[in-house]
Amino acid sequence: MAARLVLLPLAPPIKPPHSPLQISPSLSNSNSIFRTKSSTQSPTIPITMAGIKVHGVPMSTATMRVLAALYEKDLDFELIPVDMRAGAHKQEPFLSRNPFGQIPALQDGDLTLFESRAITEYIAEEYSEKGEKLMCPGCKKVKAITKVWLEVEGQQFDPVASKIAFERIFKGMFGMTTDPAAVAELEGKLVRVLDIYEARLAKSDFLACDCFTLADLHHLPAIHYLMGTDSKKLFESRPKVSEWVKRITARPAWAKVVDLQKH
Amino acid sequence: MAARLVLLPLAPPIKPPHSPLQISPSLSNSNSIFRTKSSTQSPTIPITMAGIKVHGVPMSTATMRVLAALYEKDLDFELIPVDMRAGAHKQEPFLSRNPFGQIPALQDGDLTLFESRAITEYIAEEYSEKGEKLMCPGCKKVKAITKVWLEVEGQQFDPVASKIAFERIFKGMFGMTTDPAAVAELEGKLVRVLDIYEARLAKSDFLACDCFTLADLHHLPAIHYLMGTDSKKLFESRPKVSEWVKRITARPAWAKVVDLQKH
Repeated sequence: MAARLVLLPLAPPIKPPHSPLQISPSLSNSNSIFRTKSSTQSPTIPITMAGIKVHGVPMSTATMRVLAALYEKDLDFELIPVDMRAGAHKQEPFLSRNPFGQIPALQDGDLTLFESRAITEYIAEEYSEKGEKLMCPGCKKVKAITKVWLEVEGQQFDPVASKIAFERIFKGMFGMTTDPAAVAELEGKLVRVLDIYEARLAKSDFLACDCFTLADLHHLPAIHYLMGTDSKKLFESRPKVSEWVKRITARPAWAKVVDLQKH
Repeated sequence: MAARLVLLPLAPPIKPPHSPLQISPSLSNSNSIFRTKSSTQSPTIPITMAGIKVHGVPMSTATMRVLAALYEKDLDFELIPVDMRAGAHKQEPFLSRNPFGQIPALQDGDLTLFESRAITEYIAEEYSEKGEKLMCPGCKKVKAITKVWLEVEGQQFDPVASKIAFERIFKGMFGMTTDPAAVAELEGKLVRVLDIYEARLAKSDFLACDCFTLADLHHLPAIHYLMGTDSKKLFESRPKVSEWVKRITARPAWAKVVDLQKH
């Protein structure tokens, strides 16, 4: 059975809430129609066939981060929409998956995880032999440096970049007004971060080393949104950062995540 | 040679900047005077004797996080004060250790790391056979759940708790005035986090599992400061959280970190 997933900001999907959508890399490669596997609609195909379930919405940056990791690993998964407009993320059963009431949550068999960066690290380690590595297969020194740049994204880049995306994009979606002074202040902070990235990326192709790792991947959602705003000039005016943005956004796995937002 | 390390907010230590202080767990166990090993003062004891160097100040929450991990692991290290009042953290040679100009930075042989949480993870893994485990030696499921609670500290707890500490403690130290409205708003957010911790700690002795892990340790610096303010009522009014705070702050390794602040 074919279904389309309509993506609107915090909007309920046209599928009923919690209706599981089976996303297969091979299917999403070939077209933009996703097959559903619903235990109620198709009792012969139980929803437990896919071990990995993501509860979230494809326009959320944290959900996108997890989807990118799953596509990089070429893993089958179900994307189960969370009806945020109806507050489903602040109610059971979602709160049992993430008591903080934030998307996404991941279920893999009997394991339930939340916090997108913890989920991607789990995916990278648990499925280390599948798809792309996502952690550089180098020495322990490189592993430690990767952790540094994972923290840089979480503590230095994202707190600024996410707020700019909120001001420039999401406020408009919610009928709120962008605060130019706030944007200017935030962009001043982002410039300082990107100057450091520019120097770093003069030494290696990616942030942690010459391999694409989770430290790069975690940046993709915020960069995706900011590249659709005037803030893109901050990235494009820095040659090494600009090349890096092109390199990481051109990845086929990321194209699949972006494609999900179009349906 | 004996020396005292005087700790004032962002103040230069009475030792000259970058004078290495050799902190040995055995020494700091027995008294509060730390022996210095300086290549200029004592050429027979080169500073390279201790492989691990921490560039930071013991009153900084991020430095405290790293010191706690080192003490838990019973590792010898040098604490090299950074003269923040003189802006040493915004100049070379510090910027070569951390381009973001924030303390601490760690050197272990030829490896230089920054971002306190990346440093503690490195310490826990690199010295897994020494001292306390800091990561639960359970199955991969527990490891994944530990990562979730590591992210919860970094993304949910610390952004709120650090701002309260800034309002209630550090502003006063810097001659600034606490904003009661900001404190009230932040405490409202902290309450929501601590309610989730209360439920979590009803199920396990520590956040990730029944073992003390980095997920608990990372909370110690902010909790240390908040327990010296009126915000402590938020912790003490929640029985499980209160027991957890007592349990983690009573650790001998943490007592050594706090002791460092007294000198």
